[in-house]
Amino acid sequence: MAPVPEWVKALKPTGPQGSELLQKERDGSNVSVDKLAELLHTKEVLDRQQKILAIMEKESVFDKTQILSMGRPERLKASLGKAKRIHQLRQQYGWTQEEFIMANDLLGEPTPYGLHASMFLVTLRNQTTPEQQKLFLERAERYEIIGCYAQTELGHGSNVQGLETTATWDPTDKTFVIHSPSLTASKWWIGSLGRTANHAVVMAQLIIDGKRYGPHPFVVQIRDLKTHEPLEGVHVGDIGPKFGYNTMDNGFLLFNHLKIPHVNMLARFSRVDPVTNNYVRPASATLVYGTMTWVRSTIVLQSGSVLARGVTIATRYCSVRRQFQDRDTTNKKAGENQVLNYKMVQIRLFPLLAATFALHFTGRRMMEMYEENQRQMATGGSGNSGVVLLADLHATSCGLKALGSSTAAEGLEVCRRACGGHGYSSYSGIGPWYADYLPNTTWEGDNYMLTQQVARYLLKSARAVSAGKAPDNDTCRILKTYLDRRDMGAAFDILDDDADIVAAFAWRTARMTFEALKHHDIEKRSWNSMLIDFYRLSTAHSQYLVVKNFYEAVFSTATTSAIDPDTAAVLHKLFRLYALHTLERESAEFFTSGAVTIRQITLTQTKAVVKLLDEIRPHAVRLVDSWKFPDWQLDSSLGRYDGNVYQDLFLRASEQNPVNKMTFDPYPWSNVLVKNERESKL
Amino acid sequence: MAPVPEWVKALKPTGPQGSELLQKERDGSNVSVDKLAELLHTKEVLDRQQKILAIMEKESVFDKTQILSMGRPERLKASLGKAKRIHQLRQQYGWTQEEFIMANDLLGEPTPYGLHASMFLVTLRNQTTPEQQKLFLERAERYEIIGCYAQTELGHGSNVQGLETTATWDPTDKTFVIHSPSLTASKWWIGSLGRTANHAVVMAQLIIDGKRYGPHPFVVQIRDLKTHEPLEGVHVGDIGPKFGYNTMDNGFLLFNHLKIPHVNMLARFSRVDPVTNNYVRPASATLVYGTMTWVRSTIVLQSGSVLARGVTIATRYCSVRRQFQDRDTTNKKAGENQVLNYKMVQIRLFPLLAATFALHFTGRRMMEMYEENQRQMATGGSGNSGVVLLADLHATSCGLKALGSSTAAEGLEVCRRACGGHGYSSYSGIGPWYADYLPNTTWEGDNYMLTQQVARYLLKSARAVSAGKAPDNDTCRILKTYLDRRDMGAAFDILDDDADIVAAFAWRTARMTFEALKHHDIEKRSWNSMLIDFYRLSTAHSQYLVVKNFYEAVFSTATTSAIDPDTAAVLHKLFRLYALHTLERESAEFFTSGAVTIRQITLTQTKAVVKLLDEIRPHAVRLVDSWKFPDWQLDSSLGRYDGNVYQDLFLRASEQNPVNKMTFDPYPWSNVLVKNERESKL
Repeated sequence: MAPVPEWVKALKPTGPQGSELLQKERDGSNVSVDKLAELLHTKEVLDRQQKILAIMEKESVFDKTQILSMGRPERLKASLGKAKRIHQLRQQYGWTQEEFIMANDLLGEPTPYGLHASMFLVTLRNQTTPEQQKLFLERAERYEIIGCYAQTELGHGSNVQGLETTATWDPTDKTFVIHSPSLTASKWWIGSLGRTANHAVVMAQLIIDGKRYGPHPFVVQIRDLKTHEPLEGVHVGDIGPKFGYNTMDNGFLLFNHLKIPHVNMLARFSRVDPVTNNYVRPASATLVYGTMTWVRSTIVLQSGSVLARGVTIATRYCSVRRQFQDRDTTNKKAGENQVLNYKMVQIRLFPLLAATFALHFTGRRMMEMYEENQRQMATGGSGNSGVVLLADLHATSCGLKALGSSTAAEGLEVCRRACGGHGYSSYSGIGPWYADYLPNTTWEGDNYMLTQQVARYLLKSARAVSAGKAPDNDTCRILKTYLDRRDMGAAFDILDDDADIVAAFAWRTARMTFEALKHHDIEKRSWNSMLIDFYRLSTAHSQYLVVKNFYEAVFSTATTSAIDPDTAAVLHKLFRLYALHTLERESAEFFTSGAVTIRQITLTQTKAVVKLLDEIRPHAVRLVDSWKFPDWQLDSSLGRYDGNVYQDLFLRASEQNPVNKMTFDPYPWSNVLVKNERESKL
Repeated sequence: MAPVPEWVKALKPTGPQGSELLQKERDGSNVSVDKLAELLHTKEVLDRQQKILAIMEKESVFDKTQILSMGRPERLKASLGKAKRIHQLRQQYGWTQEEFIMANDLLGEPTPYGLHASMFLVTLRNQTTPEQQKLFLERAERYEIIGCYAQTELGHGSNVQGLETTATWDPTDKTFVIHSPSLTASKWWIGSLGRTANHAVVMAQLIIDGKRYGPHPFVVQIRDLKTHEPLEGVHVGDIGPKFGYNTMDNGFLLFNHLKIPHVNMLARFSRVDPVTNNYVRPASATLVYGTMTWVRSTIVLQSGSVLARGVTIATRYCSVRRQFQDRDTTNKKAGENQVLNYKMVQIRLFPLLAATFALHFTGRRMMEMYEENQRQMATGGSGNSGVVLLADLHATSCGLKALGSSTAAEGLEVCRRACGGHGYSSYSGIGPWYADYLPNTTWEGDNYMLTQQVARYLLKSARAVSAGKAPDNDTCRILKTYLDRRDMGAAFDILDDDADIVAAFAWRTARMTFEALKHHDIEKRSWNSMLIDFYRLSTAHSQYLVVKNFYEAVFSTATTSAIDPDTAAVLHKLFRLYALHTLERESAEFFTSGAVTIRQITLTQTKAVVKLLDEIRPHAVRLVDSWKFPDWQLDSSLGRYDGNVYQDLFLRASEQNPVNKMTFDPYPWSNVLVKNERESKL
């Protein structure tokens, strides 16, 4: 790379510096960043972040400056190196599980150990017998065996019952024969499988004496523990480049009548009796039900902070970026206007800023409710009502997972574009993050598929409410309220009463539920013909839940006792912006349901939302500061805490960009491509 | 890479094969693929495509199997090699300009010659004097000098007047001094600049005797023609990795008081008199106006075919992919349902399928109108009315560029997700295409910024209409119709009358225009406070234009004489789907404007749109076939013409994926990363 000449080093950005602009933003707001941060994260987590960050920043193996220019084999290999180093540091410093997770969060990329450390270990913990724990779990925890979770197949994703891989019980030698009967039976997309794992939990159709018992989990060794070469009867590899997640070796896996011992079927819940050759049924599906609810609630909680990374970057950059004079300014010597002052930028960013808090509080509330319920069920306190509540939590977590991950994924792209041209640079830090996050809209239930589960549950609840047999939960209460009042109609004061906003969202959900019930149960429309209605219904219901949870969080004593009144007032405005902006975007559903009038919608659009944008504007930078992302984690020129955007973009381009090591031979008649590389020829 | 074992080679996908499913789709529709293709492309273009494709497919330098696994330096270098080879083939076969463009289209990636072959040559052609043509244009056409177009700066994108780079006239030695006074003055994002160009057209603020005359174009040599090293006083390089477009060397460029001769200021329109040292003003801005209209119309036209690539891939794949049984089927032995049969997939894909045609016909009509107008103005036939019409075309092309490129970019992501999990694989062919296309939403006017131009024009037109001084163009006609009828109201029969659909779109635009006019001119709201209204207004107007143009195209004799009545009938359904689906999505604006009733919206939603989805379903595959993308161009496992989706995914992953050459050492205590590479250590 050519050295940067002295005359270039002397240059500064023109006009007010980014650092000055951000300082002014921070001086102009009284939002208490530290208190809000502790409310979001807890002091314990913030301290942990500082502690782990200090260790990681010093390690050159975690250097982030070259990774986005690397080819896929190099990136994957580098990521394996990082995963190993994190493991070594974990042992060296005696990190807890939380500290280990923090280290991975700060690193900010998936690593080849990812599925070993999560799904493989979790499955072994939850589904093994004591004998299997010794055999598999303990060795896996010591990384003597490294595993993955192999469920999805080339031809089978959402439809788990349709999996083709078979595990056939052979009573003669007490083994299972694992087999892939077709190409579409190939395991596919399995994280950590492509190059890293030597074991896999394989979901396969259990067959005993010709009879099928559905998918069950089996531990299968797939590679030699010394040579790491695939075993005989196993064809395994990486599935190739992806839109993101390229530091993970998602893999494929095929079996040719591979024999595994009886003990390799994970047998805590169901098993094959090796003496009688009989299938022994699982006790209850409630636990699995619960785990899925937990995982989806985690996605909801994370969706807030995932989106907050993008909003942090865009908000800081739009405060530093200036473009055009304000058209209405009378001061013709005024400099260019901060981009964040433009209403068209505010309307894109601030509702997303509000959504980060809305989703975070919703996810947290979901997890609290789930834990309360698990405790009650464990002590037998609530009996059947605990199962009923869990069913409610399960269904609502499906809808919220879909809404949260879609909001985060689409919101990140909005943030990227709000950064204008520079948003397209990888140095913005948004693009790579977005690309890695996208699978969240597909895994743990495709977001479109999940909406059917929500609709099914709402229809069931509506039938129960209509029959006067509804259990006592929030979903049934809002359905009942609507039934009781629908003849007299609703008159919600959405512009002046926050509780009425929540009630208007509830009304819309309930009305759409009973409409869908009519189409399905009375008009006998087919399930397929109603999928679009179900999607809308699930979205409406999930928006209601987010609005309700955000409302409750803002006014909870947990919040008001943790932050000062001024900060609480700004949080309140964020609630109103999230709710009213959503209401306005979905206005057609709100007034066809009779929840609001056209005049209210017009006032929301032209007055209330614009006023809230004005009111939130001064606090935007402090609000994103409260998410407390370290610069090292953000890895963004545009989102730097100090505002030195242009210096950082220039430094990265000019001094860290490997492309600038090449000197092209630019002429088309020359078959030499790069002058300073000997073999670089056409 | 481990060889594929024989037992794997013997495997096939289960159930009906992809090839059988696609054949059945094609057998089930009577849409005339070839006739429709000729209507879209013309026979001449289709023949050209075949001819160039045959040549390119044979050249190993254009091999696409490895590029997505390459690091950025390697990819960029490989792309330079491809650009050179295309140039060599062009000379070898004597390709026309159209054939050269076709070759680049088929290649499907931007190359480092991209901006030389487009903006550099175009600018030299349009803005040079005869003397400058000899000096610069002729040598550029022979690739003896290789250039780029350097306008955007690190701190200045949309606001061209704010550019900082200066060109100061030095009367003592009759030179211009090109200088970058700050870091934000650095040219940035300039395609072909980073490693390839040795010349640049630099837009710089002309200064004569201390007075500024605004941005003007200068030809500046930046690298040595032999060594290709930067000249003294020039700091230039590549700006680093991006979300896409990584085969292009977008660059930065800084000048330290670099002297260039008088002849290097492009002087066809304005110049500095070297004797008097006076600035000579340009005659008229109409030409530039016209060029921008042309470029934006091209983006509208392309947006149809850009989106069609994604729709082709998703439609074919969703015909091959099967998942779950139909819930309402009585035949419990029925296999899994084609994903394309699900309403939630149809509602995502078919409106986009309709949009591909809508945007294509709209773009073509825009270009025809522009050309008609240019001819009239050249012959002096239309006098001032020609300029007025051009102003109308200019404004509408701004809105359509924004709508078209946003529709294409967002639509491609919808197509990618409609492919479920496999959409995330780069082998889907959608992700890389989407990532490369995204800059279209920012360049040639940021899509959000452009909407202000449309709004400004509509307000101006509304003032003219109100004052009874409106020129005779379509925009003013629809505004006048609204003014004449607004007191009696509208009653459009959108469900049964196509012309009424167009009229309803016109009505909504007109109503929103006069509302905005009232807020701005009478209520004196600030420009900034109205940016959200302007964005909505521009979108509404642009949707009207697309609906109108699609409507006229469907019923034009050019269409009805080119295709048979059955195919025309399907095209008509696509028009209705595009229009009614748009209307339903924007329903709030339609009924607050009084164009339609709530009951009409409900019927549109629950009846009309769903019925159109059913009617279009049998023709979907043939409709995408008519876009005639060769498999080599699509480069997609999922979108293959023959439907062999799973075989192709497996082939690429198993045999073409370089990651599978590495054998990991997976244990965290081992600092060896890859066993079969000697130096691969932590």
